[in-house]
Amino acid sequence: AIFQECLRLLTPQDLIGETVLVTAGPTREELDPVRYLSNRSSGKMGYAIARAAVNRGAKVILVSGPTALTPPCGVEFLGATSAAQMREAVLGKAGEATVIVKAAAVADYRPATRAAQKIKKEGSREMTLVLEKNPDILAELGEIKGARYLVGFAAETADLLANAGKKLKSKNLDLIVANDVTEEGAGFDVDTNIVRFLFADGTVQELPRMSKEEVAGRLLDVIAARR
Amino acid sequence: AIFQECLRLLTPQDLIGETVLVTAGPTREELDPVRYLSNRSSGKMGYAIARAAVNRGAKVILVSGPTALTPPCGVEFLGATSAAQMREAVLGKAGEATVIVKAAAVADYRPATRAAQKIKKEGSREMTLVLEKNPDILAELGEIKGARYLVGFAAETADLLANAGKKLKSKNLDLIVANDVTEEGAGFDVDTNIVRFLFADGTVQELPRMSKEEVAGRLLDVIAARR
Repeated sequence: AIFQECLRLLTPQDLIGETVLVTAGPTREELDPVRYLSNRSSGKMGYAIARAAVNRGAKVILVSGPTALTPPCGVEFLGATSAAQMREAVLGKAGEATVIVKAAAVADYRPATRAAQKIKKEGSREMTLVLEKNPDILAELGEIKGARYLVGFAAETADLLANAGKKLKSKNLDLIVANDVTEEGAGFDVDTNIVRFLFADGTVQELPRMSKEEVAGRLLDVIAARR
Repeated sequence: AIFQECLRLLTPQDLIGETVLVTAGPTREELDPVRYLSNRSSGKMGYAIARAAVNRGAKVILVSGPTALTPPCGVEFLGATSAAQMREAVLGKAGEATVIVKAAAVADYRPATRAAQKIKKEGSREMTLVLEKNPDILAELGEIKGARYLVGFAAETADLLANAGKKLKSKNLDLIVANDVTEEGAGFDVDTNIVRFLFADGTVQELPRMSKEEVAGRLLDVIAARR
């Protein structure tokens, strides 16, 4: 706590007056009371952004899927498990936000039906799972964006810039942070990342490999400069 | 470490000479480099058993799926992600074991194909996932059991005793630990459990709600008495 306070005194307070809504972590989409579909997001990137934004003077709301992390001190924390719960939490808080950073890896699809009891399927060698599309939270935020600064993430395994650029445009973002999760030292569960910032005006900024804390700092530099 | 040593001095060394192989946690079955199918097992029950068995003088091998837990001191630890990896680790170590406690919640099914790149599926409102059956590790252990003491777990949401009894017989177990994960204070992520021990001779022992550490202790009491 004292260390946090010192860090804060040494950090430029360039986000005072901003309310930053950050989403982080994966979502879990349940098949039954036991099984679920999820993804490898650890939440580290989103938590690092939330922590850095608090240290720079912002009011921070962190909406997080299930992770093994402890919420940073000083954030308003809302937990969510499924994409539907995350959507509810995010849309409920979006009105208060001046900046929204959607670092969560929300599941695109969920099981079309959730069984009330654990599915028993002795014998059958195959089973078919029908999935249906989850609501697209980022697209909904893009539609109600107004004067807010809206940042998305694109974790890709191929065609990084093309896929990220398409997402930036189609979701009405100001900035997308793109990373190729197959690169060494980038992506899931590791403490470093290799990212590119793609801006709505077509500018691309490539960053070298750095810690997720440093990526968070660079991202907030950009946000503070453009607000 | 000192606390562990003291605990050990105060604990009856009734498992000296035994090699206890414990499996714990869930498995993850990947759809692509990002998404996976898993279950809500936290690993707490298996880790508690491994820790207690070390304290009682056993040599302990812990094979664990991905959890947020730290392996107990003094165990031989093998990490696994998928059911296939867990099967390989378990069958590789089963020969050394005199007692096998299969507390892991191994996924019954895995995606029939794993995509090499992140699946992109803009637009389509539904998608179908074809799953195929994973190898049944516990049934394989039952076949090669010999003089080993073999313990399974049954986490059920309905027809608890019938489902657990069926599993006990079909997999050639000596003992199955059955719990209804829908009961308050039992099941996933909580620190307590409400279990019944079902023995191969038809005996059923019901335990009250207790901590997972106490369940581990009771289970090892039974094992120590029957070895």
